[in-house]
Amino acid sequence: MTKTFKISEAVVRRLPVYLQVLGDLHKRDIQTVSSQELGNKLDLNPAQIRKDLAYFGEFGRKGIGYDVSYLIEKIRQILKLDQPLSVGLVGAGNLGRALCNYNTYLKDNMKITAVFDAHAPIVGTKINSLTVLPMDSLIEKVKELNIRIGIITVPAFEAQNVADRFVAAGVEGILNFAPVILRVPEHVRIHYADFTRDLLSLAYYLEKEGETENEPVVD
Amino acid sequence: MTKTFKISEAVVRRLPVYLQVLGDLHKRDIQTVSSQELGNKLDLNPAQIRKDLAYFGEFGRKGIGYDVSYLIEKIRQILKLDQPLSVGLVGAGNLGRALCNYNTYLKDNMKITAVFDAHAPIVGTKINSLTVLPMDSLIEKVKELNIRIGIITVPAFEAQNVADRFVAAGVEGILNFAPVILRVPEHVRIHYADFTRDLLSLAYYLEKEGETENEPVVD
Repeated sequence: MTKTFKISEAVVRRLPVYLQVLGDLHKRDIQTVSSQELGNKLDLNPAQIRKDLAYFGEFGRKGIGYDVSYLIEKIRQILKLDQPLSVGLVGAGNLGRALCNYNTYLKDNMKITAVFDAHAPIVGTKINSLTVLPMDSLIEKVKELNIRIGIITVPAFEAQNVADRFVAAGVEGILNFAPVILRVPEHVRIHYADFTRDLLSLAYYLEKEGETENEPVVD
Repeated sequence: MTKTFKISEAVVRRLPVYLQVLGDLHKRDIQTVSSQELGNKLDLNPAQIRKDLAYFGEFGRKGIGYDVSYLIEKIRQILKLDQPLSVGLVGAGNLGRALCNYNTYLKDNMKITAVFDAHAPIVGTKINSLTVLPMDSLIEKVKELNIRIGIITVPAFEAQNVADRFVAAGVEGILNFAPVILRVPEHVRIHYADFTRDLLSLAYYLEKEGETENEPVVD
């Protein structure tokens, strides 16, 4: 293990899932949880759970487990959910508009603060409280609003150009919904959103009704 | 372990990710992969990988590893991607329309074959080749088209009603995009889509530019 001071991408991707499970426990007034119990919920072995959480220091106490509230707070800090985060979006089509509607549900301080589109008839239209801005205002707005993450919801053939513009404007992370792999410099983080994954895992359960009825409870 | 013949939800949710990683290897003409290499890519320990894949029989060969093509084929079978799967969608708003646009990219045989909406002005409009149908045709169309999965993209306050309609029509699985927990009978599988998770894990990488430059490569 050379990753003593780094948290790997896979672990970071599991953190929102931990946060969700812990949030559910918190809502049910459960105050402590063992790595074994977390492991059962996530079907990871307890050693894996302890290893994942050990990246962030020594939370767990032998025989008692993890303090749920403390772990939530700590993961929120690690994911930087304890500070405002401004997100910009390019592509005010159906998907872009849909994502803006999620603004209300975006956890914590994360908000889509500006929407851009390259197509003149769409520029100036409203999405909730946001007015769609022209692409040539992107760099200026990214600075002004301190936008650090860019969301791409344009068609595949336009996505690389949008990524280049976001990079030039100085965003640090990109969430790409276009079904295409994008080239970005090393210092910019890119994630790919893919709802088809949810559909694929759902398909597994079809034609398995006999089995699923007896399936071990994992929630 | 009482799960000898069952595959847990968490493992099923990891299968599309395995499939993605294996697909990348296949594209790069890599024919075998060890549990150690897969573990590095997914930051799971090799024992976890072997345990996950052991659910499906003995694929790996000591000292050689897993045959990439064979594993892809096997996981595709397990996820039932080797047979046509008809998906229905209720809620022809921005998100519903956006998801229909993904139809082209939906892997394999999985397709959205019908779209429904409760609002009269939207019924009869077109989304690509699909005509939006009224809710009172749901039961009939689900049977006719053999729709087995329902996608919900209506506002939160309408979602439970739509879920009830899907259940009454006989779907076996529901993918819910509305930000609300739904009640469905035991025999219906429900998954919650949440793009905010992708955003949350992306936020981790902000203000970490110094670190991410040296981060171990995990693709």
